[in-house]
Amino acid sequence: MHPKIANLADGLKETLVALRRDLHCYPEPGWTEFRTASLVVKKLKELGYEVHYGSEVIKEEAMMGVPTPEELARRQKQALEQGADPEIVARMEGGKTGVMAILDTGRPGPTLGFRFDMDANDVEEARDPDHRPFAQGFASKNPGAMHACGHDAHTAIGLGLAEVLVGIKDELKGRIKLVFQPAEEGVRGARAMVEAGVVDDVDYMLGIHVGISNRRVGQVVCGGQGFLATTKLDVTFTGVPAHAGGEPEAGHNALLAAATAALNLHAISRHSGGATRINVGTLVAGSGRNVIPSRAEMKIETRGATTELNDFVRERAYKILQGAALMHEVEVEIKETGAALGGEVSASLAQKLADIAKTVPGVTEVAEFGPAGGSEDYSYFMARVQELGGQATYVILGTEIAAGHHNARFDINEDVLPLGVKFLGEVAYRLSTTLPPTR
Amino acid sequence: MHPKIANLADGLKETLVALRRDLHCYPEPGWTEFRTASLVVKKLKELGYEVHYGSEVIKEEAMMGVPTPEELARRQKQALEQGADPEIVARMEGGKTGVMAILDTGRPGPTLGFRFDMDANDVEEARDPDHRPFAQGFASKNPGAMHACGHDAHTAIGLGLAEVLVGIKDELKGRIKLVFQPAEEGVRGARAMVEAGVVDDVDYMLGIHVGISNRRVGQVVCGGQGFLATTKLDVTFTGVPAHAGGEPEAGHNALLAAATAALNLHAISRHSGGATRINVGTLVAGSGRNVIPSRAEMKIETRGATTELNDFVRERAYKILQGAALMHEVEVEIKETGAALGGEVSASLAQKLADIAKTVPGVTEVAEFGPAGGSEDYSYFMARVQELGGQATYVILGTEIAAGHHNARFDINEDVLPLGVKFLGEVAYRLSTTLPPTR
Amino acid sequence: MHPKIANLADGLKETLVALRRDLHCYPEPGWTEFRTASLVVKKLKELGYEVHYGSEVIKEEAMMGVPTPEELARRQKQALEQGADPEIVARMEGGKTGVMAILDTGRPGPTLGFRFDMDANDVEEARDPDHRPFAQGFASKNPGAMHACGHDAHTAIGLGLAEVLVGIKDELKGRIKLVFQPAEEGVRGARAMVEAGVVDDVDYMLGIHVGISNRRVGQVVCGGQGFLATTKLDVTFTGVPAHAGGEPEAGHNALLAAATAALNLHAISRHSGGATRINVGTLVAGSGRNVIPSRAEMKIETRGATTELNDFVRERAYKILQGAALMHEVEVEIKETGAALGGEVSASLAQKLADIAKTVPGVTEVAEFGPAGGSEDYSYFMARVQELGGQATYVILGTEIAAGHHNARFDINEDVLPLGVKFLGEVAYRLSTTLPPTR
Amino acid sequence: MHPKIANLADGLKETLVALRRDLHCYPEPGWTEFRTASLVVKKLKELGYEVHYGSEVIKEEAMMGVPTPEELARRQKQALEQGADPEIVARMEGGKTGVMAILDTGRPGPTLGFRFDMDANDVEEARDPDHRPFAQGFASKNPGAMHACGHDAHTAIGLGLAEVLVGIKDELKGRIKLVFQPAEEGVRGARAMVEAGVVDDVDYMLGIHVGISNRRVGQVVCGGQGFLATTKLDVTFTGVPAHAGGEPEAGHNALLAAATAALNLHAISRHSGGATRINVGTLVAGSGRNVIPSRAEMKIETRGATTELNDFVRERAYKILQGAALMHEVEVEIKETGAALGGEVSASLAQKLADIAKTVPGVTEVAEFGPAGGSEDYSYFMARVQELGGQATYVILGTEIAAGHHNARFDINEDVLPLGVKFLGEVAYRLSTTLPPTR
Repeated sequence: MHPKIANLADGLKETLVALRRDLHCYPEPGWTEFRTASLVVKKLKELGYEVHYGSEVIKEEAMMGVPTPEELARRQKQALEQGADPEIVARMEGGKTGVMAILDTGRPGPTLGFRFDMDANDVEEARDPDHRPFAQGFASKNPGAMHACGHDAHTAIGLGLAEVLVGIKDELKGRIKLVFQPAEEGVRGARAMVEAGVVDDVDYMLGIHVGISNRRVGQVVCGGQGFLATTKLDVTFTGVPAHAGGEPEAGHNALLAAATAALNLHAISRHSGGATRINVGTLVAGSGRNVIPSRAEMKIETRGATTELNDFVRERAYKILQGAALMHEVEVEIKETGAALGGEVSASLAQKLADIAKTVPGVTEVAEFGPAGGSEDYSYFMARVQELGGQATYVILGTEIAAGHHNARFDINEDVLPLGVKFLGEVAYRLSTTLPPTR
Repeated sequence: MHPKIANLADGLKETLVALRRDLHCYPEPGWTEFRTASLVVKKLKELGYEVHYGSEVIKEEAMMGVPTPEELARRQKQALEQGADPEIVARMEGGKTGVMAILDTGRPGPTLGFRFDMDANDVEEARDPDHRPFAQGFASKNPGAMHACGHDAHTAIGLGLAEVLVGIKDELKGRIKLVFQPAEEGVRGARAMVEAGVVDDVDYMLGIHVGISNRRVGQVVCGGQGFLATTKLDVTFTGVPAHAGGEPEAGHNALLAAATAALNLHAISRHSGGATRINVGTLVAGSGRNVIPSRAEMKIETRGATTELNDFVRERAYKILQGAALMHEVEVEIKETGAALGGEVSASLAQKLADIAKTVPGVTEVAEFGPAGGSEDYSYFMARVQELGGQATYVILGTEIAAGHHNARFDINEDVLPLGVKFLGEVAYRLSTTLPPTR
Repeated sequence: MHPKIANLADGLKETLVALRRDLHCYPEPGWTEFRTASLVVKKLKELGYEVHYGSEVIKEEAMMGVPTPEELARRQKQALEQGADPEIVARMEGGKTGVMAILDTGRPGPTLGFRFDMDANDVEEARDPDHRPFAQGFASKNPGAMHACGHDAHTAIGLGLAEVLVGIKDELKGRIKLVFQPAEEGVRGARAMVEAGVVDDVDYMLGIHVGISNRRVGQVVCGGQGFLATTKLDVTFTGVPAHAGGEPEAGHNALLAAATAALNLHAISRHSGGATRINVGTLVAGSGRNVIPSRAEMKIETRGATTELNDFVRERAYKILQGAALMHEVEVEIKETGAALGGEVSASLAQKLADIAKTVPGVTEVAEFGPAGGSEDYSYFMARVQELGGQATYVILGTEIAAGHHNARFDINEDVLPLGVKFLGEVAYRLSTTLPPTR
Repeated sequence: MHPKIANLADGLKETLVALRRDLHCYPEPGWTEFRTASLVVKKLKELGYEVHYGSEVIKEEAMMGVPTPEELARRQKQALEQGADPEIVARMEGGKTGVMAILDTGRPGPTLGFRFDMDANDVEEARDPDHRPFAQGFASKNPGAMHACGHDAHTAIGLGLAEVLVGIKDELKGRIKLVFQPAEEGVRGARAMVEAGVVDDVDYMLGIHVGISNRRVGQVVCGGQGFLATTKLDVTFTGVPAHAGGEPEAGHNALLAAATAALNLHAISRHSGGATRINVGTLVAGSGRNVIPSRAEMKIETRGATTELNDFVRERAYKILQGAALMHEVEVEIKETGAALGGEVSASLAQKLADIAKTVPGVTEVAEFGPAGGSEDYSYFMARVQELGGQATYVILGTEIAAGHHNARFDINEDVLPLGVKFLGEVAYRLSTTLPPTR
């Protein structure tokens, strides 16, 4: 590999660890990454990138699962107290916490894209001496939020890469776009950035994730597979309450509409084209024992081995929900609060990355393909780039983990940080200098 | 009572018995009373009545539960073979077998109406020596059909009354309308005659029934109570078949739509206003074990202690059926194949009849009010006359019965025939000469 | 009426108002009436009654809908802070807050019983100047609890009656039992007192309620009618969670069990014997969108115009709940958290009371019978006394109310307090001196 | 290939065609193959085989989907009229129409097994000049039955093979068992033969089928793949009828039990281990509109990509059916009327056959593996032989077909008959002389 990239990456090790731990202290759930994004913006600007954020990179109509205004306000206040830059935060009104930075070499060449996600989980971090972040003082300071999926590492790697690229700028060609995405958890954020057009000119696109089923630093999977398409639906039935003893006929029963819907949703036909899933995960209905229930809420998810299979289930689900409402003469509101697509990585790009990986010191085990671990809204970036003629793949960087993803005791081996930067830096160098634009 | 009426009625005894037995031999289910109605028309014309029938007295759009064209044709052919008049039958095309006859005295006075039903049951008559109609040779000659509810007696009494009225015509006032209705079983026929306007000018209306809970000749109830409103629905869901193993997703499952509907129909809210009922009596769905069912049929009935209560259930049922269809993306067809209303007899008319009954020799026990025995589409006549300012009541003429109504061994004590004619003749005389028109 | 009783009652007016307002300040929901019952015990002991309470008068196995140990402890602590007697409270361990006091005249005569309920509602009392208890400083000091149904008045009347009876003790005969019942709200408390045997020797039993549909002081209904039998069920289904995407087959779905149960519960057959009701008032199921739900909770109530009708619905409900659990291989736990019976007051006793009421100054309007307002667990006392050969009735004392029962702005006209004491005192005197024991 | 086998097979061509056409004339549905089996027994005895049939080779308790005694008697009578041997038929009482014949060479060597199915479809054969069997006079003489799946060809090939083997007996080793199975349609018959032990000593087992997706004579697939496990269930719910208007509470509603079951059956969880299916193909419930339905019948099938997956669905289905019965207090009877297993052919045996096939003149296209076409109860033979240490495979012999399997116009290219005999004869020769016993 290019020795300068290796040196730069190795030299960043302590910086990266400090950065990841700072982010780990201040986790921010989806659409509330005010402090995180503020920090990203500042750092990228300092490095000389052309930085876009807020409504420039987030299409409001395509945002899914946005918290209430109260919750946004609360988190924004917290972010400011925890060091976010007020001017930057002001431009992220309404949760538009996405950031996109451009490094333009001025030389002809392809446009590369890298996507990093920034949001935390709704998990209360473990607080006992066996949990390293707690023992070493960098556990979450934000109650109910925790970086339990490694997005703190992703953001740190992204900023490390940004620094390395600046260091070798003169040897690069074309343009490089670094995309920092909010709200990957719940697959809510990617669509809004894609629909804002941030990767419409990208020829070669990469997403990354640490861990998943790769449990040692040094393992690299260059083509994640098995993206499940999914849709997350929040459904509310609204009927008419009535006294259940005195005048039951005056009611319109939202609970019965929801119960009927739940049964029929699970009874959606299996599909000969491949695996599908449906789950009514929660159902909350009614206000009191002696009142005809006038409100029922359900959290639902559909999945499919492909976008088409998920669409089949989703479309059937809509009809069932509407039919259940009609049956009981109640209103139904259906909100899509998250979505990811199916899809396949571009095989030749994955193979190219595998070749590069083998040249990187510290990379001990390279797979061209391996399981991507289910639903990821990176699939939106991948699908858009491929639709427009580009190539895209998804890289998994192995790391030891202390507990499963989303677990309150999740932690990583931080050696993945400099190694990730080194590998991605080399990828950027090699792709930018050897590949043509795709359109 | 008027002695002439008593004499005339007594003199008709043998005629009435012979007539009832002739009708009993040739039972005709609802909308196929071609021979019966033909006989009624002829007899009434012979007596000098102004006779209307066929489309004059039946509104086609309001006919419910009409048999298939094949069944109509088959029964019509049978009727002609069994002596029906071809010219008369020709005017009853499509099952319009209702008859209405007018006796106009030319003198001022009220318009009285009497309703008699003519149809038989879909019952196979018992054929053993203990069953008198079989033993004495007047059991049904029409397989699958039997007069097991006494409508043969009703028709005979109606024609006996017609004859008596002609005998005392000079002493009557106003006008008298005799209505012979098809298809009371399944509550299918009354609406079509009422909507044709046959009782729109009636001031005082009577319906009659033999038996019910009155089990001795001589008992008379002058005001039947407890009419249950009801609606009979035939429902067909039509979906799309598909191979259940190979391509289940291509199907639209009519069986699941019907199953969902059945559960939700039974779950229609109880009503604080009084008793309601719902029953999915039959459900037949699917064509084969390995095919997604594309067709499902249900026979449903709703009931209510009042018309409004039945309407509540019926309206909810429609929404449920439509919602179930929408849920599974199948078509639904809902046919009302029968209906009766609730309602209350006019109390003062019932009381007047009770006073008259007490004067009739042979009447041994008179009740002003008593149970009418459930749903009866006479309720349509009653409601229309009352709506337009008239009065209406429902008379039950007691008779010993050999077995319950609709039983294959049903038979009556034929002494009810002349007694019924006598009582109704006296009622006609007394009402026509003492009561004013109501409008 | 007896002038001494009238004088004693009139003289208590201010005491009664002060007592009712004190109780109104410190409302205690069902099974937590520690302060209230402590006060009742003390007062009755001071008056010389033989007082029984705690496990003497409450059968633990028959208590329904008891709060959690934490809630009991919290309320008990609060009661002690608000003046309850620690020794008395210690004997009410576990929520056994019922009290029964005996006045034994030593002379032969009947045993009379009077029942007063003491518990408050789970309602947050209105706090604005238009609401008199707030304006005059006696609004609830206990957040989330309020006397919004008049049980504070019942308790005050009961203690007033106790004082009057002592004042005329020498003129009374037989024995008088005063029953102060906890947890009438939710119909939870009566059964436990009845099963402890507190009215097994009562010949003539009375329950009282202020307000209901009688909206003026001076109105008295002597025989409440229309007691609806009811059962309150808390149901929990417990299944097995599983990842809905990764391994749905490993789950046992409690939500689907509950949904199936809900539909089928509402589909329980109507009953030809009279009105029934069923309501699944609330359903809460599941833990997350992508988890097969392993827990579902429902709050259900059944009702019937009679105990038998309610039993029909309740028994069907149990089968449905058990069947739903079997279907989905989940566990089901069914708790009866409340129950009331149907039943009819003893008509002759009601008539006797009506005769007495007419002699009481201030009573302006007397009805022998009138609506009792739905379900009341006084029905347990009534049924037990009647079963054992005694007579029982239910008295409604009219009062103006500021808002409907259970409303945050409920208030009464306190003139009902002395009038109630006067009437019940006269009733006690007249019944005890004129009626024989019934067994 | 062995020239004598080729000659013998070629010489049988006319005999095979005549035999197949005779069988085609007299099609017999599952468990009624009295004439067919009688003919097979006679022929095999004439050839000198040791022949077992009736209860020797059919375990009665394991027979599934047996017709009613009336249907068996009717078909038996027909068979005798159509030439079946009365003595042989007498030993097939109750539908035990299976046959197994042994050729024992007396020399050490493996035991080979070949399975041929004999039953016809419940299809009415086309009767028009374009349909060759009709045009040439060998269409079905049995109304409602037709060889529309090629089992007539299978039986003919089996008897042809029997003759060839006798012709080369001196050159064979070990033992050869020819199994003629009834009731493959509906996957009903194999289990009863396997449980009778007919293949417990078989080392190498073959099943065959003509056609499927191989549409030219000359094509041979040596290892059929994708056997779907399946279970066919006939379910009857039996409740209590009641008048729906008069006394609905007296009923126990079988229709609602079935509707609830249908919904929940379709809602059985998808399985992460692979494809599953469930279908309630038919539901017939109730007797009349105004009667609470006391009977409901369902025809159900479950499927799975493996035996385990099918078992998962089947076991869940049982619980659901039992739970639905408990819910509505009705009885449920569940009959397994058919079943097939999943499974994989023994790859090395399939490869060996492919090598042999390539040596057979007339075989033009050989595939080691190819689709077996869904569920086949040959899977029971395969599983048993493999369990006991043997090897098994499934051969598909290509043929042109006039219409799809089970179609009223199905017909084959009869050239497949001698070719099939030739190939199987060579297989028998090669396997018997080269392979060792497996146990």
